[in-house]
Amino acid sequence: MQLYPLKIVTVVGESVIMEDIAERGVELGATGYTMSEVIGHGSRSARNVGSTAGGAKTLKVEFVVPTDVATTILDEISHEYFEHYAIIAWLSDVSVMRGEQYTRKSGG
Amino acid sequence: MQLYPLKIVTVVGESVIMEDIAERGVELGATGYTMSEVIGHGSRSARNVGSTAGGAKTLKVEFVVPTDVATTILDEISHEYFEHYAIIAWLSDVSVMRGEQYTRKSGG
Amino acid sequence: MQLYPLKIVTVVGESVIMEDIAERGVELGATGYTMSEVIGHGSRSARNVGSTAGGAKTLKVEFVVPTDVATTILDEISHEYFEHYAIIAWLSDVSVMRGEQYTRKSGG
Repeated sequence: MQLYPLKIVTVVGESVIMEDIAERGVELGATGYTMSEVIGHGSRSARNVGSTAGGAKTLKVEFVVPTDVATTILDEISHEYFEHYAIIAWLSDVSVMRGEQYTRKSGG
Repeated sequence: MQLYPLKIVTVVGESVIMEDIAERGVELGATGYTMSEVIGHGSRSARNVGSTAGGAKTLKVEFVVPTDVATTILDEISHEYFEHYAIIAWLSDVSVMRGEQYTRKSGG
Repeated sequence: MQLYPLKIVTVVGESVIMEDIAERGVELGATGYTMSEVIGHGSRSARNVGSTAGGAKTLKVEFVVPTDVATTILDEISHEYFEHYAIIAWLSDVSVMRGEQYTRKSGG
């Protein structure tokens, strides 16, 4: 059984922006994503992610990707969304079963 | 406060197969699991995990287990499910509070 | 794009206690949390987290925090909740986008 070192990019934010981010992630090289509903609560210095005050639904999106795609997605989020939206994004190390298929070949 | 190095095995796939995989995980040595509903979207080279086209519900299952149990579960998934079902599975490193209880003794 | 090494503390347990734990986490230094509903199943030696027998809802809470806050939260959970409630808690390493904002300054 083969395990392949990859990254998970996790992004949490308001649902309206997260559908955009999910699509952008795929355009930037992710082979797919999973999305789930969460309740977000931020206080003080951090952004208020998914405050229930406004009634906005909060979504978590995860991409299983190679390091270079992870960096590209985080760069995009940092530049295009971070200033204007309440978003948290992080990177984790994972070992993926038959993970070589998540390295999408360019030029397809 | 004791922290104990363990693995989390995360598996994402169609609900019908995930209930099976959750039970198999416990048979293979996991002391339990958590399960949550997600929306899955795969494209191009990767399997289409939880396509909404078919209306199938997608579930994520997580097992907190020692390394040997993690490997056994992933082997089983790789051999028994991977060829015929849209599944993603990965391994993460975690430090678990009083984690020694997740190392199930055999022969019980 | 800056990535900042932080910890995620993940806690899974019955909903009644998890709302308490989420608030305690913020009191102990977390700048926020995300919460999601899961199905928990424990067997044999491990605690029965979120048994459906009692119909109790199971919640997962996640805090993105510096190491010292992570340790403080896990200590509190270990001492105040672990003996009397079915709880699983673990720590993961993550690299957080503009993560310096999750290091809450004291005395604010």
